[in-house]
Amino acid sequence: MDKLPAQMTAVTISKPGGPEVLVPAQRPVPKPGAGEILIKVAAAGVNRPDVLQRLGLYPVPPGASDLPGLEVAGEVVAVGDGVTRHKIGDKVMSLVAGGGYAEYCLTQDSHAMPVPAGFSLTEAGATPETLMTVWHNVFERGGLQPGETLLVHGGSSGIGTMAIQMAKAHGAKVLVTVGGQDKVDACLKLGADAAINYRTEDFVARTLDLTGGTGANVILDMIGGDYIDRNYDAAAVEGRIVQIAFLGGAKASPNFSKLMMKRLHHTGSTLRPRSVADKAAMVAAIEAKALPWLAAGRVRPVIDSTFPLKDAAQAHMRMETSQHIGKIVLTV
Amino acid sequence: MDKLPAQMTAVTISKPGGPEVLVPAQRPVPKPGAGEILIKVAAAGVNRPDVLQRLGLYPVPPGASDLPGLEVAGEVVAVGDGVTRHKIGDKVMSLVAGGGYAEYCLTQDSHAMPVPAGFSLTEAGATPETLMTVWHNVFERGGLQPGETLLVHGGSSGIGTMAIQMAKAHGAKVLVTVGGQDKVDACLKLGADAAINYRTEDFVARTLDLTGGTGANVILDMIGGDYIDRNYDAAAVEGRIVQIAFLGGAKASPNFSKLMMKRLHHTGSTLRPRSVADKAAMVAAIEAKALPWLAAGRVRPVIDSTFPLKDAAQAHMRMETSQHIGKIVLTV
Repeated sequence: MDKLPAQMTAVTISKPGGPEVLVPAQRPVPKPGAGEILIKVAAAGVNRPDVLQRLGLYPVPPGASDLPGLEVAGEVVAVGDGVTRHKIGDKVMSLVAGGGYAEYCLTQDSHAMPVPAGFSLTEAGATPETLMTVWHNVFERGGLQPGETLLVHGGSSGIGTMAIQMAKAHGAKVLVTVGGQDKVDACLKLGADAAINYRTEDFVARTLDLTGGTGANVILDMIGGDYIDRNYDAAAVEGRIVQIAFLGGAKASPNFSKLMMKRLHHTGSTLRPRSVADKAAMVAAIEAKALPWLAAGRVRPVIDSTFPLKDAAQAHMRMETSQHIGKIVLTV
Repeated sequence: MDKLPAQMTAVTISKPGGPEVLVPAQRPVPKPGAGEILIKVAAAGVNRPDVLQRLGLYPVPPGASDLPGLEVAGEVVAVGDGVTRHKIGDKVMSLVAGGGYAEYCLTQDSHAMPVPAGFSLTEAGATPETLMTVWHNVFERGGLQPGETLLVHGGSSGIGTMAIQMAKAHGAKVLVTVGGQDKVDACLKLGADAAINYRTEDFVARTLDLTGGTGANVILDMIGGDYIDRNYDAAAVEGRIVQIAFLGGAKASPNFSKLMMKRLHHTGSTLRPRSVADKAAMVAAIEAKALPWLAAGRVRPVIDSTFPLKDAAQAHMRMETSQHIGKIVLTV
């Protein structure tokens, strides 16, 4: 291995604002502390929280890098004390605490996973955030069982496309909502049992119709707003509704008697503030139960588009159009 | 045993309305079908749903008696085919599917429990509804663990007073909200660690203060309305909020970002529409884990007042004043 350089190119948020505030700059190459590994980044996924962070709406957690970027794939080039799971030269993918939009990025040894067989590094860099988000919210928090029905809002998003494949691999029925015919087609191609165009159809009526009147057992919702009361209508008795974002607003006025009478479970989570230990536990569970789906080719990220690292601003513009299907990735 | 009479006195709802519509009348003594037992009623508890049913606001489930009354205690005087748990002459208490306001009442063999040692029949008749409601919502649905903090709204109600004692017997810390100093005193006497007078104190601030800023792990809420957003503030990370009624209204406009950021679990249930099998499973769990608390004298119902069966109207008037502390019971 070559000696590591002192400086690297990273994309910084020069000030809160539009995509144009994402500016390449030179930063010191970080050094791994105890339990950490340094990854030479080949690909970094772009995620919605990156946009919120750029706008100044998503405070960086204490101790995290101020650089954007929550997931990367690449080669391990340095390891800190006490690292046991990975070694220099390993190809890994990892959720990171920030700093993914860079040539080098630190992560916890316990958070990095091997690049699945058959995955390009671009695909691997587009995997950890959605894999962990879907795993935790649909499987751990939502408790989706084989034979149950999952309804995913935003079915063509990075999270949505991952949720479709993982739920199908698990033996569930999957319904999604999307905003156009091209997205309907993409979701059906990925294995969704039905894709509901919310611009032309009522997802509550369609969900009930597609489940014989029973409703969805688990709903993965990134919309919120008036979808909350409608989710209560679309859910089955003892249904679990999991909020992972509020693209439609976090204030809503549902009729909570539906929640009580149907014995619903309304919960939610965000991944980034979770403890190192919590994320390590998710990674361990994923390695045992979900990575085999990826290695078998049953689950892989849908890549919408790739951009060179220095063009991160264009990648954000693409995300903000909401025309993308699947993941947007920066390549180094 | 004497031959059973053909007719009995029962309290009927002559039409939807105020307490005065509760009118004694003669009805046929019901006959136990397969798996059912007939109880000669000594005491029947009065519950909030009885008031809603009297007002015409709580539809009687299909197949249930049109007579009010959801819990009784007394002696088994007849058994149907396939009854294995109880026999004629046994003293039992039971949740019933309606018809408790009567001299005789049917129940499922699987729903009746032995009268706990040391309990009067009046106490036993005041026990099943609150015992099962607290067991299911606080322990099964809320998953209260020893060492955790339970916040109960309506601490001096029948359910509240039962929740205080059961949670303390389980090793939890218990906070309650109540509407007056006499109720504060009653709840502290029952073992509550703190009783918050909502007329003079902010329960969110007090709950956070009493938990070192952590919040309550489980909240049992019968109020709803603007308490919902405040419950989200008062709950701990991963807190469970369980709705069992909406005395303050079921429409509310909370900020759901709190639910997501704190990874709360908002759920609820109603007991009456649950299946015979679901209720039997609760009874089996209660017999194993909670009845020992009752037999040991650690948990017993607080009796506010008793009224003769024919004076059910007066019992309802008492409940509607909300001045009662604990249970109101009809005696036969």
